[in-house]
Amino acid sequence: MAQKYVYLFSEGNASMRNLLGGKGAGLAEMTKIGLPVPQGFTVTTEACTRYYQDGKVIAPEIVEQIFEALKKIEEINGKKFGDPSDPLLVSVRSGARVSMPGMMDTILNLGLNDETVVGLAKRTNNERFAYDSYRRFIQMFSDVVMEVDKNKFEAILDAVKEENGATLDTDLTAENLKEVVKRYKELYRKEKGHEFPQDPKEQLMEAVKAVFRSWDNPRAIVYRRLNDIPGDWGTAVNVQSMVFGNMGNDSGTGVAFTRDPSTGEKRLYGEYLINAQGEDVVAGIRTPQPIEKLKEELPEVYEQFVKTAEILEKHYRDMQDMEYTIQNGKLYMLQTRNGKRTAAAALKIAVDLVDEGMITKEEALLKIDPKTLDTLLHPTFDPAALKKANAVATGLAASPGAACGRVYFTAEDAVAAHERGEKVILVRLETSPEDIEGMHVAEGILTARGGMTSHAAVVARGMGTCCVAGCGEVRVFEEEKYCTIAGNRVNEGDWISLDGSTGKVYLGAIETKPAEVSGNFATIMQWADEIRTLKVRTNADTPQDAAKAIEFGAEGIGLTRTEHMFFDPDRIPAMREMIVSKTEEKRRRALAKLLPMQIEDFKGIYKVMGERPVTIRFLDPPLHEFLPTDEEDIAALAKEMGLAVEDLKGTIASLHEFNPMMGHRGCRLAVTYPEIAEMQTRAVITAAIEVRQETGLNILPEIMIPLVGEVKELKYVKDVVVATAEKVMEERGVKIDYKVGTMIEIPRAAITADEIAAEAEFFSFGTNDLTQMTFGFSRDDAGKFLNEYYGKKIYESDPFARVDQKGVGKLMEIAVELGRKVRPNLKLGICGEHGGDPSSVEFCHKLGLDYVSCSPFRVPIARLAAAQAVLKEKQQ
Amino acid sequence: MAQKYVYLFSEGNASMRNLLGGKGAGLAEMTKIGLPVPQGFTVTTEACTRYYQDGKVIAPEIVEQIFEALKKIEEINGKKFGDPSDPLLVSVRSGARVSMPGMMDTILNLGLNDETVVGLAKRTNNERFAYDSYRRFIQMFSDVVMEVDKNKFEAILDAVKEENGATLDTDLTAENLKEVVKRYKELYRKEKGHEFPQDPKEQLMEAVKAVFRSWDNPRAIVYRRLNDIPGDWGTAVNVQSMVFGNMGNDSGTGVAFTRDPSTGEKRLYGEYLINAQGEDVVAGIRTPQPIEKLKEELPEVYEQFVKTAEILEKHYRDMQDMEYTIQNGKLYMLQTRNGKRTAAAALKIAVDLVDEGMITKEEALLKIDPKTLDTLLHPTFDPAALKKANAVATGLAASPGAACGRVYFTAEDAVAAHERGEKVILVRLETSPEDIEGMHVAEGILTARGGMTSHAAVVARGMGTCCVAGCGEVRVFEEEKYCTIAGNRVNEGDWISLDGSTGKVYLGAIETKPAEVSGNFATIMQWADEIRTLKVRTNADTPQDAAKAIEFGAEGIGLTRTEHMFFDPDRIPAMREMIVSKTEEKRRRALAKLLPMQIEDFKGIYKVMGERPVTIRFLDPPLHEFLPTDEEDIAALAKEMGLAVEDLKGTIASLHEFNPMMGHRGCRLAVTYPEIAEMQTRAVITAAIEVRQETGLNILPEIMIPLVGEVKELKYVKDVVVATAEKVMEERGVKIDYKVGTMIEIPRAAITADEIAAEAEFFSFGTNDLTQMTFGFSRDDAGKFLNEYYGKKIYESDPFARVDQKGVGKLMEIAVELGRKVRPNLKLGICGEHGGDPSSVEFCHKLGLDYVSCSPFRVPIARLAAAQAVLKEKQQ
Repeated sequence: MAQKYVYLFSEGNASMRNLLGGKGAGLAEMTKIGLPVPQGFTVTTEACTRYYQDGKVIAPEIVEQIFEALKKIEEINGKKFGDPSDPLLVSVRSGARVSMPGMMDTILNLGLNDETVVGLAKRTNNERFAYDSYRRFIQMFSDVVMEVDKNKFEAILDAVKEENGATLDTDLTAENLKEVVKRYKELYRKEKGHEFPQDPKEQLMEAVKAVFRSWDNPRAIVYRRLNDIPGDWGTAVNVQSMVFGNMGNDSGTGVAFTRDPSTGEKRLYGEYLINAQGEDVVAGIRTPQPIEKLKEELPEVYEQFVKTAEILEKHYRDMQDMEYTIQNGKLYMLQTRNGKRTAAAALKIAVDLVDEGMITKEEALLKIDPKTLDTLLHPTFDPAALKKANAVATGLAASPGAACGRVYFTAEDAVAAHERGEKVILVRLETSPEDIEGMHVAEGILTARGGMTSHAAVVARGMGTCCVAGCGEVRVFEEEKYCTIAGNRVNEGDWISLDGSTGKVYLGAIETKPAEVSGNFATIMQWADEIRTLKVRTNADTPQDAAKAIEFGAEGIGLTRTEHMFFDPDRIPAMREMIVSKTEEKRRRALAKLLPMQIEDFKGIYKVMGERPVTIRFLDPPLHEFLPTDEEDIAALAKEMGLAVEDLKGTIASLHEFNPMMGHRGCRLAVTYPEIAEMQTRAVITAAIEVRQETGLNILPEIMIPLVGEVKELKYVKDVVVATAEKVMEERGVKIDYKVGTMIEIPRAAITADEIAAEAEFFSFGTNDLTQMTFGFSRDDAGKFLNEYYGKKIYESDPFARVDQKGVGKLMEIAVELGRKVRPNLKLGICGEHGGDPSSVEFCHKLGLDYVSCSPFRVPIARLAAAQAVLKEKQQ
Repeated sequence: MAQKYVYLFSEGNASMRNLLGGKGAGLAEMTKIGLPVPQGFTVTTEACTRYYQDGKVIAPEIVEQIFEALKKIEEINGKKFGDPSDPLLVSVRSGARVSMPGMMDTILNLGLNDETVVGLAKRTNNERFAYDSYRRFIQMFSDVVMEVDKNKFEAILDAVKEENGATLDTDLTAENLKEVVKRYKELYRKEKGHEFPQDPKEQLMEAVKAVFRSWDNPRAIVYRRLNDIPGDWGTAVNVQSMVFGNMGNDSGTGVAFTRDPSTGEKRLYGEYLINAQGEDVVAGIRTPQPIEKLKEELPEVYEQFVKTAEILEKHYRDMQDMEYTIQNGKLYMLQTRNGKRTAAAALKIAVDLVDEGMITKEEALLKIDPKTLDTLLHPTFDPAALKKANAVATGLAASPGAACGRVYFTAEDAVAAHERGEKVILVRLETSPEDIEGMHVAEGILTARGGMTSHAAVVARGMGTCCVAGCGEVRVFEEEKYCTIAGNRVNEGDWISLDGSTGKVYLGAIETKPAEVSGNFATIMQWADEIRTLKVRTNADTPQDAAKAIEFGAEGIGLTRTEHMFFDPDRIPAMREMIVSKTEEKRRRALAKLLPMQIEDFKGIYKVMGERPVTIRFLDPPLHEFLPTDEEDIAALAKEMGLAVEDLKGTIASLHEFNPMMGHRGCRLAVTYPEIAEMQTRAVITAAIEVRQETGLNILPEIMIPLVGEVKELKYVKDVVVATAEKVMEERGVKIDYKVGTMIEIPRAAITADEIAAEAEFFSFGTNDLTQMTFGFSRDDAGKFLNEYYGKKIYESDPFARVDQKGVGKLMEIAVELGRKVRPNLKLGICGEHGGDPSSVEFCHKLGLDYVSCSPFRVPIARLAAAQAVLKEKQQ
């Protein structure tokens, strides 16, 4: 038997969402439970996939099934498609598994042509209605299917209105509308070189193809990538017999939610327009009425709608988003789906539905998109103020939240302005660790260069500060103290606004609202914690970050980067002295200066973390990152160090690397300069002993050796660590527990994980570097071509945001298997950026890791995602 | 039963080489076949390994076994160790599985002290002999075991000689020697702070430990790395009862080979010294006699030695390198081993031994080290001239051969000098493709920067030109037209000499001898071809390289890099125009200019290669490599292109990459600019069609897409290639065969090789990049820390020279398995630098690859290594 590509609404149900799309499954389910739905059929998502496989052609068997289904709809309605005396008209709508803006939306009144419009007029005895429907159809079909600019149609409509002194569309007479239709058809012929198609079957097939095509338009591709929707799902097409909201004042159309989608409050929420078709509500020419008004205008219909909404919410056990049309006083349901909602509403609805006994806690947890939690923890723009604003440029949404402030171009200027009481936005070509203080005082950070894991992005996320990174339309003229944003000059002190959740940049100030965390948040987090098995740690380099993370529920630190600590103005001289030293003895002298500061760093963090585990990563970046680059600073350093400028320049030049990402960094530093590892070990252990002595707390440091690719290099550094730790403990006469482990961030480490596990007490997957090495592209450079890759459907998601399960994930799997084989109690975690990405958290759960670690503000996301991972596993 | 760590010579045999070392096994075997060998015992290589495991301590059970064996030797000799009246004396020598310079060599006369020397004198009735032996022992023990500078002892000896008017050591009387001993002991006490050890057992154990220690001294580590000897083999120690060549004029010592080690000629070849001990031959104070002289001096001994040599050569079926001592007219054999020989001698001996019926062809092939073949194909220094020369610096032995010429610092100056008829050495900080012409005319190339796979190294190997790369002691002052080499100023036009096989740099001119390939070479190659199953292709970018490679036996091209073709002064303008174009249309215009040139490139190569397969890799490097970097050139280009300088600078800056190795290159270029792949496909196919039409040859192009990490990107580029190829063939009305495949050089490609094999008709392992990504370090930057890694025994060999089987090799294995599962007839090859490395060739054979591809001059190496791989497999 041939594959079934077309289902009547009466043949489907809610469980067939993958095949019929969300809209199709909803229509089928409403049909099934006896709600008033105009009948029709759904062309499946598989037909869409087949269309692409066949080289963008609809196979004859699918065409055949469509017309068979159409025949059945004709029978149900007692009307024939294309019948000049009493034509069946249909709407055509796309409907993917999940609602997806960017795809083709709707074509109404399909089936009208020069003949059937006459029949419709006669049959309904309403010529105005018939031509109104026809002109709407021509415009929608031309715009959506044939890509004729819709503004050209609007211009004609406006012209006719003006010629006839009409204000509203509804003021136009049948004759006026006939004129509109005539001019529309002329426009179409001029634009496309042929007459507007008169054959309803041709109209239908073109419309179906347009829906399929729209699955792959650029906006849809971007949306899918941002929302982790696979490109091979495809969209279904719903063909439904028309009901008309534009048949007079007892007709209308509207949308409604069973609860308030902004706040989650339990009340019917929506609006409608009398004597209108669907797109009028959106177009905003007439102001829709709130749904309560319907009670007065059409009380019976209102009553029926309220009941229907209740039925649907109970049936779906979730807040519903419904579309409906009233034709001559009769209610028809055109759509129901779980409604989109704000993060705050999502929490309230989930908790309320549990309280109402409608769903279980587990179901409640699965209803919340973890990614949205972020927005609750950061300021947002005032929605009213935002509506009036226009974004001038878009960069990477690197760290969420909204911010507005005055622009400054250096960390010093930002700090000074902040001290004067100004709100500051720091704008930089890219940030470096020297900018930390400026970043700290800024409301938001904007960079022209750098990706989602650039310095600016990583540090801003840690601080919870809004950041838009890598905004290519920004040019910074630091010396001249101005920048241009998409060609607009912005001087120092001018106001701009940033949305770190969308990457948008606005000129001028937009009012923001502070973060607001409700009791529902705590309730949901508590439920998540009861269920999840994966621990959640945080990446934190300072006591402040650590404290913030604990507030958000972090159970330990998975990554403390020690390099940022050395950029402090107090410390950088000793660090630089260490780097330019030519002998071990001199290096040791410089390291001795850093030791007491490093001990204080760790004590600060230990005190905040208490008995939670703290993983400290040893020095990782190439040393040249610490050295000055401009002439002046070099001269100053040379003077300070008592070196000849040329000599120092020689040293700096000798540290230059062609590919710093693949250079002298990570444990390679400790192999060449074991005294650095010695100093850091001494600091880790001394600090733990002192905090224990001061507070009685049992500190659990975990020393993490980065960038290991070969067990012997880990062994070499570990030997240094263990010898030093033993020595320190002997000197102090105190024994403490500590672990030594490694990051798995080099492909070779994953492949030889069995050997490495023999020496490492824990693995932490450094998925940033692992992704770079596995794909062979650097995160800093890939931005230049990745957009092309998304556009050409080569990659569907950013591998630096979401673990590439097929490649990077496979290496992780190999490492877990090999590692646990040798050391069954090997502790496994992840500390790359991916630790705060829900799909990656789920993957880590499946791999059997012990914990994920992410920036403080992502901790709640990880907690919920970890709980969902357990629930999804149970479902399978 | 406890493990046996010590074997008497009479307990071993030749097959126990791994346990007893080469020397120990040889002594045991000679004992077994009844040759006159002073008896002794061997402490095994396992004892050495144990010594390191135990933290550089010799376990008590090993000490016990040593003294048990010593007791047996005492019984055999009828003398006791340390017996004041008739002491047993022994020699202590190291002996690894393979002969290895850099380790401790020999201590003679061990067992002497202030008492036993008196006994020895009385017993032999030769006081002079006894004190001569004692002073030798003190000097050797102090130098080798206790690290007291031996020159200080030489100074004492010279002083005593002068004081007593003696010219030769043999002129010294017993009394003189007593004085020497006295002063030696004083020196020892002064240097070490204690008396010279008098306890023979302590002397013995210290000597054994010194041998073990010497296994890990820096010179030994370097030697092992250069010769692929694993660090965990360890060395054995041979303790042998002394016989004395210094007992008078009927005594002596010498070395000999059964055939001439330089030429391979069949004749006894060696030398000896009368009344001397081993080290005198080496020290060169007295001139040794040729062995023929012994026939006159001691005819019976000579006769006996000739017979012994014959026995040994027949027994071992190979040329032997022997050491012997004559004590009071009696011959003793101290060592036999397969003799080291020049490459030319190796070929002659192998072929001769087959002709003499002594060995089979297969055995002959296994006797030749493939690496040495290189030296036959390149000029070498005249050995006499070389002896007088002193190397001032050492760089990487990047491309073999010897060269001398006048120094020039730019390609233009080199070309001009060459045209004046001068011999040229090109000295550069590092080379770039723009230097090609200068490299072409140079006798040799010296660079200050860059590794074994830097541009200079790769191109020089392709050309067969001598190259020393990355010589850190060279500083180039290009503008001022001079350089310094280890501090010596060398001006333009000055002579220097380079040895690309050792990396040594010499000031002044050293005479060279041209390459000389004998008939034996052809014979061996023919035998290898009969046996090997792996095909050997070449990496060649020009018809000249291709022709050279065919001469050396290449069966196809495994890699034609197309990028070098665009650096030609004729072409670079069009290439640059293409790169700075902002629209596809402009890019296409520039590409159209390159097309006819590229067609000619490929036609030239096809004509040379005939019906052999030719793999052409599409454009690979990041585009900024083609753009000018200095102000002047940028201004010139801007003028040429009609662009504003600032605008062009902007374009160049936008192409800058943080990590170019992981940037916008390889197939990523073709994804963003498919028109480049179109042009290259058009050139590949058009050229093949035209050559077929012109010559009737069936050209087999293989199009190789580089840097693929995901099947969809390969598919995208392949679609462009296939569509273009079909179009060209349709235009021309000719069908030809071609293949489309990919390099496997990104870890993700290896891991997802099953998916990739669905689209690729062949895989070629790009092990240079694969090694970089798998280890996470760039070949250009790793030089800075790899030496430290070798020194600390973290890596034992250069992963860019020899395939890292555990990591990179594992990925290759995964790729082969996954790839062949999907496409059983998948063609598999390797085109990284490793394709010419014998151990890597063997590994490729084991993996089941179809071919290896290497630079032309390495083709013979690969042919022999491939044959050896088959033979070794059979042995197992």
